[in-house]
Amino acid sequence: MNAEIIAIGSELLTPHRTDTNSLFLTEHLNRLGVDVVYKTVVGDDRERLTATLALALSRSDLVLSIGGLGPTGDDLTRECAAAALGRELRRDDSLVEPIAARFRKRGLPMPEINLRQTLVLDGAVVLPNPNGTAPGQWLEHHGRILVLLPGPPRELCPMFENLCVPLLREKVPPAAIRTRVLRLTGITESATEERIAPIYTQYRNPVTTILATLGEIQIHLKSFGKDEAEAQARLEEMFPRIEAAVGKYAFSRCGESLEEVAASLLRSQGHTVAVAESCTGGLLAERLTSVAGSSSYFWGGMVCYDNQAKMDWLDVPAEAIETHGAVSEKVAQAMAEGIRRRAGTSWGIGITGVAGPGGGTPDKPVGLVYVALAGKRETKVLERRYPGERATVRWQASQSALDMLRRVLLPGGD
Amino acid sequence: MNAEIIAIGSELLTPHRTDTNSLFLTEHLNRLGVDVVYKTVVGDDRERLTATLALALSRSDLVLSIGGLGPTGDDLTRECAAAALGRELRRDDSLVEPIAARFRKRGLPMPEINLRQTLVLDGAVVLPNPNGTAPGQWLEHHGRILVLLPGPPRELCPMFENLCVPLLREKVPPAAIRTRVLRLTGITESATEERIAPIYTQYRNPVTTILATLGEIQIHLKSFGKDEAEAQARLEEMFPRIEAAVGKYAFSRCGESLEEVAASLLRSQGHTVAVAESCTGGLLAERLTSVAGSSSYFWGGMVCYDNQAKMDWLDVPAEAIETHGAVSEKVAQAMAEGIRRRAGTSWGIGITGVAGPGGGTPDKPVGLVYVALAGKRETKVLERRYPGERATVRWQASQSALDMLRRVLLPGGD
Repeated sequence: MNAEIIAIGSELLTPHRTDTNSLFLTEHLNRLGVDVVYKTVVGDDRERLTATLALALSRSDLVLSIGGLGPTGDDLTRECAAAALGRELRRDDSLVEPIAARFRKRGLPMPEINLRQTLVLDGAVVLPNPNGTAPGQWLEHHGRILVLLPGPPRELCPMFENLCVPLLREKVPPAAIRTRVLRLTGITESATEERIAPIYTQYRNPVTTILATLGEIQIHLKSFGKDEAEAQARLEEMFPRIEAAVGKYAFSRCGESLEEVAASLLRSQGHTVAVAESCTGGLLAERLTSVAGSSSYFWGGMVCYDNQAKMDWLDVPAEAIETHGAVSEKVAQAMAEGIRRRAGTSWGIGITGVAGPGGGTPDKPVGLVYVALAGKRETKVLERRYPGERATVRWQASQSALDMLRRVLLPGGD
Repeated sequence: MNAEIIAIGSELLTPHRTDTNSLFLTEHLNRLGVDVVYKTVVGDDRERLTATLALALSRSDLVLSIGGLGPTGDDLTRECAAAALGRELRRDDSLVEPIAARFRKRGLPMPEINLRQTLVLDGAVVLPNPNGTAPGQWLEHHGRILVLLPGPPRELCPMFENLCVPLLREKVPPAAIRTRVLRLTGITESATEERIAPIYTQYRNPVTTILATLGEIQIHLKSFGKDEAEAQARLEEMFPRIEAAVGKYAFSRCGESLEEVAASLLRSQGHTVAVAESCTGGLLAERLTSVAGSSSYFWGGMVCYDNQAKMDWLDVPAEAIETHGAVSEKVAQAMAEGIRRRAGTSWGIGITGVAGPGGGTPDKPVGLVYVALAGKRETKVLERRYPGERATVRWQASQSALDMLRRVLLPGGD
């Protein structure tokens, strides 16, 4: 079964907004074995929207529209779907009360325009919306399925998961797509390709894709089967071979983020960490504490931008800064050891570097970063020269720091 | 002139990737007065891609395709465009040497498959690509324009800006669209609507849109004119009226972020700041230091997750924590004053709260946050109950803290 997604709204055609609902829908559709073959964004324009819906229904088994179900004159999805299908819109009186109730709860009368939200395509099943005033609609038409979904994610997501997925499960022929993502760091795209090409070229199913993002390489495997078990079995045969080929560069096997992996290693070993940051300015602390329950392993952190702060707060010797400069192996080491001592944690991390755009010199160019990890026995320091601009350099530095921590916590250490 | 954008690549139809190149293109097109009326995502599928290109050329003046210009068998844009247009592809021998040179520079021979990248649509102008091997193509066909652009942003962006914009400027009838965004915080969407509806309903041009994002409301004005000056004049007449209606809630008039606004106020007044964070875990420091040159106003920060850290590093009295709890007005105040004293800065900010998902109690539920701002004369404390999950609560808390700082730095204070 093929699907296409139509995201509706003129704001999605501006430079300021992009559709992300389709990612959520795609994930659920893929799990059911439904492939998404087109995504279209169209504005609040009667003629274009009608043409887009008609075209989609002429070429795809399942058409999901997102948005345009509000009460205002801009919200044209119901009318355009009716025009595209050649069906009437009828008022469903049972929909009036739930909408009126939402307004009453806020002490307001229901505006007349909200009655537009009670119009239903002839023959459609209404999908109740407990999180908003716009009900969804599900219509089967000449062997195709059209689903009208509301735009706000907190309305769309539960409606799709709770109502559409069970309905689709009955319609979809028994076939399945399973995907798995292996996330790597500390290795380039071409080096990854070199390691895994001898394996993946042996398979036409699963299909392998390598994607490079900042400080990370992802290997996507997508398998097809006549049912979930077959698709899963295909994945399980191939996945361990790919995994073995990339070794310790792989930090995540089920989609977890690098900070989640570091967190779970710290937690399982009862270890704690504290961080001292200069050029990353709090990004490393922010990532470590973005994980729920981080108070069990994260003690605290210091962002020491000023040199005086490095001396006062971390006991970095003035002499180290004078002799080697604030961006140096020695200062990174002193920061890591200083924060570990002050916090009394198992591990201390120090980061100092030139994030740019200013502050670079021929000796110490923008992108030069030192990351130090202090433990009970020793302090390791990494020197890196990252390409890119300020945010890019900072992200990569935090990525290296988290990866150093992850690797030292792996069974057998780094 | 109407344009549509086609993003090509099967990876853009997975749950893991979304097209963002179209935002960049839309911004430039709007500046030229070109409206984007459709965006389509299609996979690496010969039949679908050909149909999509043919449809686009039948309904839009300008069609921009993104991606599918690589050397591999998956890269079908050239062939499908030829099929959609009914034109031949010819090898352009002058393109071989630049591609071969890129490989030589890396000490590699040019693989045979890269010759596919020298195929050009009959009648097309080649758009050189100094940042990659895939040249772009510009073709005028029956009064329409088709532009084939490479997918990687660092190749697409300079090619479009440097080569396509000048070519388009000659083609586009003298008309212009100008947009302006006013960014607000500390006010709801409906309160914004109430304040500005009496103004914007008087105008059909500029068009006004209100968008709500996390901790922020944006008012988008879009004006149309026969040239840039007219469009600009329309904006300039209306903009100050909207601005006056929302008053101090507006933090940004030209797209600047809240941290950039706070930074420039600190800098212009020669003030400095240091921060003490608990639930935001470094996010506030990270945002303040994301601005280039932040070392001139940001001294440092502490992330005090553990209560002991709050006492040791910030001199928060043990008694305040015991009596009022770590999440309390008193502790936020002590954190702000402690960091200001320790850092010797003009301002100190303290944040403590329950980010969730765990740690909430009936008295102190998830989402309860105290933000304190300590200055020379006094310490202000804000109590907020933010909806949403961990990342949402943390973001909103950092937003409130930056806004408190911004407001106190405005001429005349808060």
